[in-house]
Amino acid sequence: MRRHRRLTPQPGLPPETPVPTGEKKVEHTEIALITYDQTHFDEKAVEAVEDCAALKGVATPTWLRVVGVHDVEMLQKLGEGLGLHPMVIEDLLDTTQRSKVEFFDDYIFVVARVFRADEGGTAVESEQVGLVVFDNLIVSFEEGGVDVLSPVKERLRTSKGRGRQMGADYLVYSLLDAIVDAYFEVIERLGQRLEDLEEAIVTDPAPSALQAVHDLRTDVSYLRKCVWPLREVMSCLARGEAVMIGESVTVYLRDVYDHTIQLIDAIETYQEIVSNLVDIYLSGVSNRMNEIMKRLTVVATIFIPLTFLVGVYGMNLKGMPEYDLPWAYPALWGVMVFVVVAQVAYFRRRKWL
Amino acid sequence: MRRHRRLTPQPGLPPETPVPTGEKKVEHTEIALITYDQTHFDEKAVEAVEDCAALKGVATPTWLRVVGVHDVEMLQKLGEGLGLHPMVIEDLLDTTQRSKVEFFDDYIFVVARVFRADEGGTAVESEQVGLVVFDNLIVSFEEGGVDVLSPVKERLRTSKGRGRQMGADYLVYSLLDAIVDAYFEVIERLGQRLEDLEEAIVTDPAPSALQAVHDLRTDVSYLRKCVWPLREVMSCLARGEAVMIGESVTVYLRDVYDHTIQLIDAIETYQEIVSNLVDIYLSGVSNRMNEIMKRLTVVATIFIPLTFLVGVYGMNLKGMPEYDLPWAYPALWGVMVFVVVAQVAYFRRRKWL
Amino acid sequence: MRRHRRLTPQPGLPPETPVPTGEKKVEHTEIALITYDQTHFDEKAVEAVEDCAALKGVATPTWLRVVGVHDVEMLQKLGEGLGLHPMVIEDLLDTTQRSKVEFFDDYIFVVARVFRADEGGTAVESEQVGLVVFDNLIVSFEEGGVDVLSPVKERLRTSKGRGRQMGADYLVYSLLDAIVDAYFEVIERLGQRLEDLEEAIVTDPAPSALQAVHDLRTDVSYLRKCVWPLREVMSCLARGEAVMIGESVTVYLRDVYDHTIQLIDAIETYQEIVSNLVDIYLSGVSNRMNEIMKRLTVVATIFIPLTFLVGVYGMNLKGMPEYDLPWAYPALWGVMVFVVVAQVAYFRRRKWL
Amino acid sequence: MRRHRRLTPQPGLPPETPVPTGEKKVEHTEIALITYDQTHFDEKAVEAVEDCAALKGVATPTWLRVVGVHDVEMLQKLGEGLGLHPMVIEDLLDTTQRSKVEFFDDYIFVVARVFRADEGGTAVESEQVGLVVFDNLIVSFEEGGVDVLSPVKERLRTSKGRGRQMGADYLVYSLLDAIVDAYFEVIERLGQRLEDLEEAIVTDPAPSALQAVHDLRTDVSYLRKCVWPLREVMSCLARGEAVMIGESVTVYLRDVYDHTIQLIDAIETYQEIVSNLVDIYLSGVSNRMNEIMKRLTVVATIFIPLTFLVGVYGMNLKGMPEYDLPWAYPALWGVMVFVVVAQVAYFRRRKWL
Amino acid sequence: MRRHRRLTPQPGLPPETPVPTGEKKVEHTEIALITYDQTHFDEKAVEAVEDCAALKGVATPTWLRVVGVHDVEMLQKLGEGLGLHPMVIEDLLDTTQRSKVEFFDDYIFVVARVFRADEGGTAVESEQVGLVVFDNLIVSFEEGGVDVLSPVKERLRTSKGRGRQMGADYLVYSLLDAIVDAYFEVIERLGQRLEDLEEAIVTDPAPSALQAVHDLRTDVSYLRKCVWPLREVMSCLARGEAVMIGESVTVYLRDVYDHTIQLIDAIETYQEIVSNLVDIYLSGVSNRMNEIMKRLTVVATIFIPLTFLVGVYGMNLKGMPEYDLPWAYPALWGVMVFVVVAQVAYFRRRKWL
Repeated sequence: MRRHRRLTPQPGLPPETPVPTGEKKVEHTEIALITYDQTHFDEKAVEAVEDCAALKGVATPTWLRVVGVHDVEMLQKLGEGLGLHPMVIEDLLDTTQRSKVEFFDDYIFVVARVFRADEGGTAVESEQVGLVVFDNLIVSFEEGGVDVLSPVKERLRTSKGRGRQMGADYLVYSLLDAIVDAYFEVIERLGQRLEDLEEAIVTDPAPSALQAVHDLRTDVSYLRKCVWPLREVMSCLARGEAVMIGESVTVYLRDVYDHTIQLIDAIETYQEIVSNLVDIYLSGVSNRMNEIMKRLTVVATIFIPLTFLVGVYGMNLKGMPEYDLPWAYPALWGVMVFVVVAQVAYFRRRKWL
Repeated sequence: MRRHRRLTPQPGLPPETPVPTGEKKVEHTEIALITYDQTHFDEKAVEAVEDCAALKGVATPTWLRVVGVHDVEMLQKLGEGLGLHPMVIEDLLDTTQRSKVEFFDDYIFVVARVFRADEGGTAVESEQVGLVVFDNLIVSFEEGGVDVLSPVKERLRTSKGRGRQMGADYLVYSLLDAIVDAYFEVIERLGQRLEDLEEAIVTDPAPSALQAVHDLRTDVSYLRKCVWPLREVMSCLARGEAVMIGESVTVYLRDVYDHTIQLIDAIETYQEIVSNLVDIYLSGVSNRMNEIMKRLTVVATIFIPLTFLVGVYGMNLKGMPEYDLPWAYPALWGVMVFVVVAQVAYFRRRKWL
Repeated sequence: MRRHRRLTPQPGLPPETPVPTGEKKVEHTEIALITYDQTHFDEKAVEAVEDCAALKGVATPTWLRVVGVHDVEMLQKLGEGLGLHPMVIEDLLDTTQRSKVEFFDDYIFVVARVFRADEGGTAVESEQVGLVVFDNLIVSFEEGGVDVLSPVKERLRTSKGRGRQMGADYLVYSLLDAIVDAYFEVIERLGQRLEDLEEAIVTDPAPSALQAVHDLRTDVSYLRKCVWPLREVMSCLARGEAVMIGESVTVYLRDVYDHTIQLIDAIETYQEIVSNLVDIYLSGVSNRMNEIMKRLTVVATIFIPLTFLVGVYGMNLKGMPEYDLPWAYPALWGVMVFVVVAQVAYFRRRKWL
Repeated sequence: MRRHRRLTPQPGLPPETPVPTGEKKVEHTEIALITYDQTHFDEKAVEAVEDCAALKGVATPTWLRVVGVHDVEMLQKLGEGLGLHPMVIEDLLDTTQRSKVEFFDDYIFVVARVFRADEGGTAVESEQVGLVVFDNLIVSFEEGGVDVLSPVKERLRTSKGRGRQMGADYLVYSLLDAIVDAYFEVIERLGQRLEDLEEAIVTDPAPSALQAVHDLRTDVSYLRKCVWPLREVMSCLARGEAVMIGESVTVYLRDVYDHTIQLIDAIETYQEIVSNLVDIYLSGVSNRMNEIMKRLTVVATIFIPLTFLVGVYGMNLKGMPEYDLPWAYPALWGVMVFVVVAQVAYFRRRKWL
Repeated sequence: MRRHRRLTPQPGLPPETPVPTGEKKVEHTEIALITYDQTHFDEKAVEAVEDCAALKGVATPTWLRVVGVHDVEMLQKLGEGLGLHPMVIEDLLDTTQRSKVEFFDDYIFVVARVFRADEGGTAVESEQVGLVVFDNLIVSFEEGGVDVLSPVKERLRTSKGRGRQMGADYLVYSLLDAIVDAYFEVIERLGQRLEDLEEAIVTDPAPSALQAVHDLRTDVSYLRKCVWPLREVMSCLARGEAVMIGESVTVYLRDVYDHTIQLIDAIETYQEIVSNLVDIYLSGVSNRMNEIMKRLTVVATIFIPLTFLVGVYGMNLKGMPEYDLPWAYPALWGVMVFVVVAQVAYFRRRKWL
């Protein structure tokens, strides 16, 4: 996961010059036109971007899917054709937007950050998805690296269920639902890292573990920063403020909104657990130090008196009566063994051993 | 208590396919139909789920009690019969919902997490309860593992008190009251764990105690996450926004709302005490280390000078006048005893002993 | 001060069965009827609770003072006589309520926790006071242990000041003012404990002091939890939402509200100081450890080189030229004195001594 | 700066008995009557407080300046003469009020805490200032110790600028501006203490420094508690809710409001810096301990092996071949020098020296 | 970056006397008059400030650019000519304002703090920019040190794009956009410092690093304090409350508002990382201490028993049988080698080596 979001604007450039940010994820921009109703489903590639202008005001649900947002000229043509505000195109080109929804006269514009955890591995990719919602026409803009919308298309193609019976606004719900659901996978990945770290820290509180905890904390915090504006977007849509989205679909959007709340709950739980991990790490380090201290104390306090004793009888003074006692040596050993046993007993009673 | 709530949606699945989540808690879904008024009380099992459709618009208070929410087909039939929104059925099937209330045209839908502490033991079970409130008809959905609603039924059967005199909305109150009251038991259980831990930590600040504190903290935090949305549900109902619930019952709901506030107060108090426990643990660990340090210091500083002294008279230098004094040996012992006594006195004055 | 508020509801019991909670504080419930106007003051005991029903709608200010809330039957009779909602009686019986105000058609119901610090000692008692405010009739319910309302009665009896000239709503103000003022005494008591602790910790940072700090923190936090809802009650009344309370009295209630704000200010200040105390305690413990470390270091580093030196001349090797020098012994003493002096000087410069 | 605000009400006293709190700051209450317009300025002492009643409804801007608020009787007379609510007089007598503004029918009442840092020294005095604002009449009440309003009078006397041209409401602005500006001086004083402490802590992290940090933290926190309600007062007045204050003056009040925001910004910055100071103190203490530990380790680990070596050759065992080698002694010295040099090199590489 | 904002008002001075604060950044105030429309662009210096009065009500977009705000007299003349409120002039003179927007009858007044990071270096300069927005006339006031507005002028001169086609309100957007964009550069600079510090701390946790962390924390916190009010300004303007700014420009302002949100997101991320740095520093210090402790323990516990052993055979007691064994010396060496090996093995198993 990219931690520090590269910040957008490039000061000094004229504000009206749209510049694509971020690395190019696909070579060519591809536009697919998907039309469907209860009985048929059709998908074809759009060759000339100028044709898209005619799509405004279609009668049947239509999904114009744009993959690749680095072709400034093409996007501008498309925007002009559909009557989009220049700022919308600029927001699409700048792939570091905060999730947001904006209401215009005859369309709404949604930008969202989308995540995908790759299978098996630990890497997490993210990109920006833009949605422009007209009455019967949905235009989606993807960067092309992270594909979370294809399953929605597949479902639309194969199933004749609710998705095909309801209008284009239900498609908006399906797309947003797919975007939010992808977050849960990322959360699960983070949960896995969290558990691994927890075990690592309890077993061996190495300094590298603390670094890993801080990396995890930053990732969780970044995810939280991504989910909060998404929650606002969903809250805004679920309140039914957009006229393009019918009352019947609003109930479904409320469900997506509930999912974002669940996401935030989960993230906050993770944040608390990460905080606890730091505590446990520090406590583990200090316990280890205690262990070492105890070892030192035991060895030192056992041997220091003994060394003193043997020092006494290494002296060359006159008139030391013990020097003439034949049993002095074994007696001294007896005293020293007693001192050791007494100290060990004391340490055991104090639970230092 | 399950700590990390397993997160709900399964990405990639069509949003319109209802899938039951969580483990199956009862083998078969059972539906009981309970009707009552001031004079009679009747309970019978519902055989064919299709019959339930006729219950909409009953004149006497009726409680349809569904236990077991894994039979997707049956729930969908029931939902269609009663005219429930498909999303309601999906929310019932997904047993990881956050507590919430949703208003529909002719019914309100309440989901709540319910807890039960088993008698004597320390385990806490939890499940999800759903309530659909029509004008005279209450439909409750339980998972079947945690039974907090049966006492309400028993009271309804045996007593001819207020519960039988008032309408179906009073039953809603009774059910919600039972759900909220069950939390207090769980809180008491947590309080018991807290006291045990407090004693354990003061007696012996072992690393395992810190782990237990963090487990407790996570549990308290999880409970708090469950109670907050419940508080919102009760606040919403107590404001009298639901037309199915009469003014006279709103006063009672306000009381349940007050209980959720008390719960939150208690949980926050526990959170503070848990925080203090971490402090006390760390302080206990550091005190123990101080003890060990003191022991080491005392032994070392008492014996180090003595060892030096006996070292002096172990030298083989010429011209050491002490070697010829007969009273040198006893005099040295005198000096050493004095050194020991002086140091002990110093340590005592400094309160290190 | 009771720290952990015993939590109220007893799950499994029918919600409509009023049960008194808490210990019985007086043997018999006593009801006093106090009537007054500018010229006279009258107090008599009420024998038959049924007579109270006639008091609704009195023309002169009347205070019905009920002391003892364990007699369920009598309270229910009184409630029926005055037309109180059953929930009000239940709230009165349950003496663990959070402070709150509830508006009914012809009366308002206030519950508040009241504290009294006993003279000289450190104990703090608390109980619940309930007020039912009709147009000219105030009914107060006390548990009977903590008597903060009697001074109000005495003032009413002896003085012909504002209290006698104004209506029953001014009496409400007087009662609430007495309740809030009693908190200040408790706060002062806490302040005293705080100062004592501060001194104890600076003098001797014993582990028991930390425990005392945490007890104090919990008490302050509990008090804060009691004052906040009281503040809400006063805010609500001071906004003049209750029709039974005239505009002229609202100004006085605003003053009581200001006092609750002052209480919260004081409590928050205490909370900050308590936090600081923990810091100071920990810092004190660590300073003491530093002291011990320094002592050890000084003794060890002074004597370790000396012991080495005398060890050198304890060797039995051949060809040690010093053995034949007559001035070797005094010279060695000179060297050792120099080593000691040099080290002490070094330690002094480093401020370790 | 008085840290713990002495809390106001004296429980048990009749709420209607006004009692002055705080120490008497001036012997006699003095009342000055200041009238001015564009062309003249007049100041005279008021002898009989009864005369003030006639001032209500004056046509020219008038400032009645009362210095000394301990004369209960005089204040009550003045209050009655001007038609002030009894609670206003009580608030004036109780000099521990929180800053607040209260709206009455024909006047507004402002209470504010005012600070003055004495020149050169570090002491900070504070007192309470009350303002009663009629249409053309401003009555100010000062305790008499801290004089921040005199410069306003002097400016009024000497300059014929805006202050003289505009009405009495501009005077209100001038007075409030003077009160708020005085806070900046106190803040600057705190900033000075902060810098001194910072230096002291970096140089020598003594325990007394920590105590000083906590004192400073409490002072900053107290100041913050004083500024917040003042901000509310200014916000309230700047919104133009008071009819006595014209639209043209509201712009100026907005400026004073901005100053209170700046004050809060500065105070919060100080709070953060103080928090950092605690960190730096603790880190300094622990660094010093590290220093001591290092010293001990170096001395001990250098000499312990040497002492062992010389101990070996102090043995009286038979058959020690080294005893017969003439070069054993110099060789041993060589070994010992090597051991010392190796250890010092190791320590240097590890940066322990 | 100046950390502690010098606080504004100078108490005791008449509030109506405008005094310039801050250091003078340019010698002479220069005023440039820039007029433009789709076809032409004109810039000329204004000689007589009195001429500016005629600019009010111009038909074509006009930008009056004032550089240097220390000439009180000139600013007052300009203010009078344009009919600005005296308080606006005072706010311009006082260059320590918090960013804010104020609405007047026929103009709005915006004050903002602007930052510029100089190229290559690490220094950050800041100054205050004021904007007065009439219908077709924009008056900008700069201190003259930090020039972020010139690029806007250059773009206006060279490009015939959107900036020239749209009205004066689009110029307001361009100016505000330039101001906000400049913050991103400063943020990037902070990010660089953060990374450098992170590396320094991981490599060598010196006390100076902690000081640097605290400096950085204070800087980030100061920046946050600057951005928050700017966000409020942009939020206020983006809501379209100002009539001088057309609907079509509001969309652009919403974009600038989004940038301020991004700034706050980035700053908060930095604040979290800085917090983590303190943790990592403290943990690094404590790890280093552990290292030292371990070294001491190992050396001491290895040699202390050996020293005891050689001490035993340094005794002069009679009847020590070992003295007569020829193989005693090599045997003793064997024992000592075994003790060392055993201890080293033990330490390795415990991971202390």
